[in-house]
Amino acid sequence: MQHPNQLLRPAADGQRYELLSPTAMPRAAGFLWNRKMMIQMTCRGYAVAQFMQPEPAKYAHAPNLEAKTFMQPEQGYYAHHPGRFFYVKDEETGELFSAPHEPVRATPDRFVFSAGKSDLAWTVEKLGIRIEMALTLPVDDVAELWTLKVTNLGSRPRKLSIYPYFTIGYMSWMNQSAEYRADLRGIVASSVTPYQKVADYFKQKDFKDKTFFLCERAPDAWEAAQEVFEGEGGLHAPSALEGESLAGGDARYETPVAAVQYRVALGASASEEYRFLFGPAFDDAEIVALRERYLGAAQFTATAAEYAAFVAAGHGCVTIETPDAEFDNFVNHWLPRQVYYHGGVNRLTTDPQTRNYLQDNMGMTFVEPATARHAFLHALSQQEPSGAMPDGILLVEGAELKYINQVPHTDHCVWLPVCLKAYLDETADWALLDELVFDGVGHGLTVAQRIGRAMEWLLKERDERGLSYIAQGDWCDPMNMVGYKGKGVSGWLTVAAAYALNLWADMCAERGNDEAATAFRTGAQAMNDAANLHLWDGRWFARGITDDGVVFGVKDDEAGRIWLNPQAWAMLSGAASAEQRAAMIAEVEAQLHTPYGVQMFAPPFAKMREDVGRVTQKHPGSAENGAVYNHAAAFYIYSLYTVNDTDRAWDLMRKMIPGPDEEDYLRRGQLPVFIPNYYRGAWREYPRTAGRSSHLFNTGTVSWIYRSLIEGLCGLVGDAEGLRIAPQLPQSWPGMRATRAFRGATFDVTIQRGDVSAVQVRCDGTPLPEARVTGIEAGRAYKLEVTIPQGQEGVMACKP
Amino acid sequence: MQHPNQLLRPAADGQRYELLSPTAMPRAAGFLWNRKMMIQMTCRGYAVAQFMQPEPAKYAHAPNLEAKTFMQPEQGYYAHHPGRFFYVKDEETGELFSAPHEPVRATPDRFVFSAGKSDLAWTVEKLGIRIEMALTLPVDDVAELWTLKVTNLGSRPRKLSIYPYFTIGYMSWMNQSAEYRADLRGIVASSVTPYQKVADYFKQKDFKDKTFFLCERAPDAWEAAQEVFEGEGGLHAPSALEGESLAGGDARYETPVAAVQYRVALGASASEEYRFLFGPAFDDAEIVALRERYLGAAQFTATAAEYAAFVAAGHGCVTIETPDAEFDNFVNHWLPRQVYYHGGVNRLTTDPQTRNYLQDNMGMTFVEPATARHAFLHALSQQEPSGAMPDGILLVEGAELKYINQVPHTDHCVWLPVCLKAYLDETADWALLDELVFDGVGHGLTVAQRIGRAMEWLLKERDERGLSYIAQGDWCDPMNMVGYKGKGVSGWLTVAAAYALNLWADMCAERGNDEAATAFRTGAQAMNDAANLHLWDGRWFARGITDDGVVFGVKDDEAGRIWLNPQAWAMLSGAASAEQRAAMIAEVEAQLHTPYGVQMFAPPFAKMREDVGRVTQKHPGSAENGAVYNHAAAFYIYSLYTVNDTDRAWDLMRKMIPGPDEEDYLRRGQLPVFIPNYYRGAWREYPRTAGRSSHLFNTGTVSWIYRSLIEGLCGLVGDAEGLRIAPQLPQSWPGMRATRAFRGATFDVTIQRGDVSAVQVRCDGTPLPEARVTGIEAGRAYKLEVTIPQGQEGVMACKP
Repeated sequence: MQHPNQLLRPAADGQRYELLSPTAMPRAAGFLWNRKMMIQMTCRGYAVAQFMQPEPAKYAHAPNLEAKTFMQPEQGYYAHHPGRFFYVKDEETGELFSAPHEPVRATPDRFVFSAGKSDLAWTVEKLGIRIEMALTLPVDDVAELWTLKVTNLGSRPRKLSIYPYFTIGYMSWMNQSAEYRADLRGIVASSVTPYQKVADYFKQKDFKDKTFFLCERAPDAWEAAQEVFEGEGGLHAPSALEGESLAGGDARYETPVAAVQYRVALGASASEEYRFLFGPAFDDAEIVALRERYLGAAQFTATAAEYAAFVAAGHGCVTIETPDAEFDNFVNHWLPRQVYYHGGVNRLTTDPQTRNYLQDNMGMTFVEPATARHAFLHALSQQEPSGAMPDGILLVEGAELKYINQVPHTDHCVWLPVCLKAYLDETADWALLDELVFDGVGHGLTVAQRIGRAMEWLLKERDERGLSYIAQGDWCDPMNMVGYKGKGVSGWLTVAAAYALNLWADMCAERGNDEAATAFRTGAQAMNDAANLHLWDGRWFARGITDDGVVFGVKDDEAGRIWLNPQAWAMLSGAASAEQRAAMIAEVEAQLHTPYGVQMFAPPFAKMREDVGRVTQKHPGSAENGAVYNHAAAFYIYSLYTVNDTDRAWDLMRKMIPGPDEEDYLRRGQLPVFIPNYYRGAWREYPRTAGRSSHLFNTGTVSWIYRSLIEGLCGLVGDAEGLRIAPQLPQSWPGMRATRAFRGATFDVTIQRGDVSAVQVRCDGTPLPEARVTGIEAGRAYKLEVTIPQGQEGVMACKP
Repeated sequence: MQHPNQLLRPAADGQRYELLSPTAMPRAAGFLWNRKMMIQMTCRGYAVAQFMQPEPAKYAHAPNLEAKTFMQPEQGYYAHHPGRFFYVKDEETGELFSAPHEPVRATPDRFVFSAGKSDLAWTVEKLGIRIEMALTLPVDDVAELWTLKVTNLGSRPRKLSIYPYFTIGYMSWMNQSAEYRADLRGIVASSVTPYQKVADYFKQKDFKDKTFFLCERAPDAWEAAQEVFEGEGGLHAPSALEGESLAGGDARYETPVAAVQYRVALGASASEEYRFLFGPAFDDAEIVALRERYLGAAQFTATAAEYAAFVAAGHGCVTIETPDAEFDNFVNHWLPRQVYYHGGVNRLTTDPQTRNYLQDNMGMTFVEPATARHAFLHALSQQEPSGAMPDGILLVEGAELKYINQVPHTDHCVWLPVCLKAYLDETADWALLDELVFDGVGHGLTVAQRIGRAMEWLLKERDERGLSYIAQGDWCDPMNMVGYKGKGVSGWLTVAAAYALNLWADMCAERGNDEAATAFRTGAQAMNDAANLHLWDGRWFARGITDDGVVFGVKDDEAGRIWLNPQAWAMLSGAASAEQRAAMIAEVEAQLHTPYGVQMFAPPFAKMREDVGRVTQKHPGSAENGAVYNHAAAFYIYSLYTVNDTDRAWDLMRKMIPGPDEEDYLRRGQLPVFIPNYYRGAWREYPRTAGRSSHLFNTGTVSWIYRSLIEGLCGLVGDAEGLRIAPQLPQSWPGMRATRAFRGATFDVTIQRGDVSAVQVRCDGTPLPEARVTGIEAGRAYKLEVTIPQGQEGVMACKP
């Protein structure tokens, strides 16, 4: 076993994470995105890339006709999976290796995979040759900018052939071809997206059906047919590389590939640098334009700087310095980046689930609040006349509700006040509530009126017991058969709605509408009461009641005995008394905690339960059958902060990030550059695979973790007039520092423990009467010295 | 270049075709099917298998989430493509090879891929070891029966490990796992077919979601996770094979594989034999039942015999002995087998296109006429109230029209009399026409009434010029934009409808309904006249007229200048005069003939033509853009026989079968065990790839070729009272022999040229007054001596 520092490390500037082995964590990956596309690449060179036209599309394909589907967790890799590779052949000995690792898989003398915030880079040394390869993106175009540097590490001259090999794959059963185009100096593959119905022709005729691989320097040879390139040798030793020169073939309805050859003689310590552009285009003219815009040393430098600035704009509103340097690194660099990704491109879908869209933009509140504001207005413009929110929010003309968004869920309204609360705390932009929003039929209502209707809808959609109908799902998509007959109710949704109603009641009160405040608070109380009456199981809240009247998520259940969400949200809603909370938290710890975080429920289902649904058919430990489903874990962490269970909240938050010890890294198999949607659970049932990362970085988790960090750990949360200060540090920490950007001002905050009985704050040297800064001036830098009581975890600033 | 006899050969009994190299024709494949499933396997070990539940499903999957689609031509293979392999490791030297060729790709000392009519078998020799592997199927279950024999070819004892490696692949994103089950003595992979909508749960809950690999003898070790099996070594040198023993791992949401290990010590010349069962199942009980039913030496022998009998039942109604032995072999063994496959399982779809269903059953007339009869009745039961036939025929409860069957085509009615004609000629079952057929709403009409309505529908669906509307397609599916606005017409369909009307008029006359006969004949004449008036382009018939009034398929067109189908069917319909025919045939020869058959049209389209549609976006040379599309070629061949252009018909028919010279085999890349749906065309534009087989054996071609062979070449065709004899031999043939099964009797026919001016026939030694046997007695064997004129091609027995 390697020592962690020999395996992976943050780079000195904190902007990068480096992995020093291609085999220890074979799926370890980084991702980049811009306004039009996304690419995730593994340390070994495999890539998943998609762009919007407007639906997600690919320009590098699998070797077969892949299903069009949502982004999958635990992406499978195999020899012909799309990737970006450079073969290197020693022309004197015939020896071969490939960078970064696939397809040859030669053991490198040195290996670094360096995931940067705005680039991915590799260094591979083998046979006395150093290969440095790096990828960055432009901000507004769909193109990969690749740099390759080849260096002779030795003192004798070397003769090499360098073969960039970029998979293009099976583009289309209707029409595909590829050829080297001397005029464009690259390989251009053409295809026609298949269609059978006339109407689809008009939808598809402007698709970017070409894939280009452009070379700054003219290559010496090329090959455009996958099968010819590979030959009998196989991808680990392609037949085409045996000869002196690639044959210059084209692909005619054969699977296209972009493979070119550079013959290079390198003197002692000499280097050569190459640049390539890879991506999709509609036609030759677009390829020419992209080539001119990007393909050159100066253009690469300028584009990299622009792209770095684009990413840097998502730096978020807080940086921290705590006793846990790795955690700091994650929070200061990667967490806001992931939040920014979600809020910026909405997971590269044209119809995000409404709950995801709202929560992703809740996170965006802390990064780019204007975007969040626009999103709330946009979502409300699609509110239904009944007050219900639709299952998905359509983002572009002609988009359609797809996949899970065709299945009726009943929780979408909940997220309006929940997410708005974070936005108003951060911005105090109460004017938003008076904005007029027109719906699809031109009916105008203010934001406040619309949210009021949504809350009324939640109150209405309850059964005779006062519990919320679940229909074919709530936040938990695959719990689709609890209520499909129209009777089943959701325990989680009941308390979540109560929480939403309470939040909205507070906002109504803040706006002086006491009548509405009272009405909604009464409604919330009724729901909390109903939950207590029908769903309290003695030590925790049940998950729901099926169409047939069976209460589930209770102590007598063999599987799905205890669910995390009803406990978390019963704490948020106020349904749970202090005594109940103590019991719930103890049971969650006993039944759901694992070394890799807290499971969504336990025990996992081993077989179908027809009165619960799809979740019970999922693989145990996968999303969402008993996994450490981080989104649910994040709700729980947030709720723990609200009840001041600070150490437990911290422990679970820390477990979302791989490390710090080697065993944990290896088990998760992921770099700490994003939080995945889940880690494998079923820890008691399948210990071998528990803890594995899904490697899927689309997750509502990050908004909640960033919020928990700001409102809970740092305790620097706004209200209508200012910034309240109530840090919740783990007991073991003597202190921490934070820099908080807030309403145009900057707060340099030092937190330490002292002999005080409550939080005390000095602002620019002057003690404050309460732990709150008001009258904040934009542009000003504040220095806060915060003293918190010894041995106390703190009290949450933002009480629900 | 190898000599053809060193590359491939029919086996001595004619029941098998043998390929002696794994690399010369890497995609060369054979296929087996039974009542529930189909499997196509390449010589190198890759497999495509599907079974019906009731829609097509797989039990061995790609490494990624594949699209569900119709069977594609030119199937792409790649390292992780599903396959069936046996690794062999020399335990003393560590040397490795695999049978049949993939994944190791070691050069064999000897290689035979033997495609039998009811089994596929391989012999591979390497490292002094002989591997014999063979596959057969049961008749009514979905299971592969595999035999493996390992022989020590040398005189010293050997220590080996044998590793069967059967891919299972990416089964499901919802739930997949695999483990070795000692109780079942095999690896069982489990999955859940994904669903999101509740309704789909009930459709899928009884799916066979397990894949089993059962071993007759308990293996010494096993591995169930693909990634672990492969490791860093890659499939060509799996890491798991480096150790002494497979690790015995399971797969938990990882990609499953079935890999087991046998450690075997073989004395000089000693052998060991193994048997395996591979397939899908619903549960353990089904696996146990299949194991008991099939997995043992006796069961294998019995099952192989039953399966051979099942296949042998599709022997067809004629065997021939001509100067072309390879052609004889194809006709006597493979052609009726392919016809039988089509008619027996309807291409493994639940909603065959109506035209395919009818034509496939036209072929079945010659193999299993009762099945054809049932199919005609079944198709008519789905006739629409308007008289139109639907786009697809639903074969099972709950089936739906999918893919292309959701696009309106206007030709389906044509096939009723066209296909029925063959059936009536073969069986004289005129009673069929009086059968009462109830449609979906319980309305009963006789077959004759229904066909009459269909003919009236054809007469009605014409424009003011008397030409047939094409809507979004006719027989040529992807010609979908000629008439989508409701105005465009099809030249082919106009003459095809005229042919159908004439055939039906003849049948009406035969039944004594002269009035109807006259009416339909008048209608046919009007359509022929309209075609001549509006579509005759001087040397050939145009393909149609677009919505905007543009005649296309004419001499001024740059692409799609001349189309084969209007010429073929204008000859069948009688629209073309002798003078026109001569011009058309000359132009077809000049513009469409290639060394690999006759193209469907030329020149191929290089870019989209929006007033023609999808066909113009297809890849040039692929189906259907200028390919040698064998179905269209078969129509043309049939039409050439009807106008007594015998040598040309023979030449084109012979070109449908690869060979006889080596260059042709290599170019087609296919064994002569089936006719593919197309050979690549665009011979003038893309000579490198022209001639390549699509390797797709689903094609309406075979019914027409079998019919052409029987009615044209052999000239042994029935009428209401007997069998007419009018052989059409190529001029170069001195004679031939045929054995014809007909209405329960057997005709042993010897044909030779003689000094006669017309065909003369002796039946059992007695000269017949005309070339026709009447009063045929079932069960009797007739001996016919047929003399045909010298240097004359003959006159078709079955004149349209």
